[in-house]
Amino acid sequence: MRKISDSTVRRLSLYLRFLEQFAAQGQTTISSAELARRGGTTSAQVRKDLSFFGSFGKRGLGYSVPELAAKMRDILGLRRSYRVVLVGAGRIGGALIQYPGLRQRGFNVGAIYDRDPKKIGSRWNGLVVRDVRHLEADLARESTDIAIVVTPAEAAQDVVDRLVRAGVKAILNFAPAQLTVPADVVVKSVNMALELETLSFALANR
Amino acid sequence: MRKISDSTVRRLSLYLRFLEQFAAQGQTTISSAELARRGGTTSAQVRKDLSFFGSFGKRGLGYSVPELAAKMRDILGLRRSYRVVLVGAGRIGGALIQYPGLRQRGFNVGAIYDRDPKKIGSRWNGLVVRDVRHLEADLARESTDIAIVVTPAEAAQDVVDRLVRAGVKAILNFAPAQLTVPADVVVKSVNMALELETLSFALANR
Repeated sequence: MRKISDSTVRRLSLYLRFLEQFAAQGQTTISSAELARRGGTTSAQVRKDLSFFGSFGKRGLGYSVPELAAKMRDILGLRRSYRVVLVGAGRIGGALIQYPGLRQRGFNVGAIYDRDPKKIGSRWNGLVVRDVRHLEADLARESTDIAIVVTPAEAAQDVVDRLVRAGVKAILNFAPAQLTVPADVVVKSVNMALELETLSFALANR
Repeated sequence: MRKISDSTVRRLSLYLRFLEQFAAQGQTTISSAELARRGGTTSAQVRKDLSFFGSFGKRGLGYSVPELAAKMRDILGLRRSYRVVLVGAGRIGGALIQYPGLRQRGFNVGAIYDRDPKKIGSRWNGLVVRDVRHLEADLARESTDIAIVVTPAEAAQDVVDRLVRAGVKAILNFAPAQLTVPADVVVKSVNMALELETLSFALANR
């Protein structure tokens, strides 16, 4: 498969959401123009994005909604579920694990870790917060696909090193830190303060 | 000024964090190599990023920490504060407004809006949740720089259209929707489900 950019993958995720909404409304076919309109992009972009994965649709008839949705799920790796662990039982972590979109998409949070004795043992959304010292021992028993890191910045790299040594290959990082990982591990970082600063930068440099 | 990419702006934000940490530890000068090490990048990249803004530092002596930090704040538009409104009083919004990094950086949440009668009038982190019907009237009186949109997907574009008509020029969007705005408005989108799907995509397509 050709190298696919992050922005293409993001658009595919969006297209899947739209397709699911169309399906829920009973619509069975859709044109690239309709997908483009919903996605704030062009038909040419939609066709280009979909062309990465072979040929879809029939000229003049558009795409079959259920077929295209199934193919998108396939491409995005959403035909299976993923075990997720959360490291850091703070506010953002709390908002995250209550987010219904996670479970709907097959991202199942199986454990939450923290180092704070006041938090360890408390119940969070049906899970008991575990001591982060048990991380390696637990991961050896409980095969885990994805870790969400919501620790303070200064703790993040150490936690990530431990996750990587334990075999975790995908990390979603909310700590305001740049993380170093081996080439076979993928990290995505989300940082609201940084996003806001791209906005203040834009406002200040117009 | 030359066009500066989002990823450069993000690195500048990270450098500023590191500089502040160094300053807190009493360090007065720093080399590009040290900044690069903390940032998980190269000295050449650091020098290139800083070169966008003129010449800094002295060969062999490195950069002055307070001087470089001040220049970064200048560049990132952080010498002033910003009035922020939050639309959507849900869990993510709740986590956001309690985030101390916002206020520290001068992003002051001045109002929270929702359409749910059960939420309107309730107190959130010292603010009373307002009826979103009053958005335009309020914005006409209370000059606002940035809006954070945390509504359901189907409500997001309508809310954004109203914000834009009321003069808001910067939007941080947490709704899983692609938004259309005029060219003079900047939108950044954060979507945890999409981030997770870039991870499942990576895991599925290795």
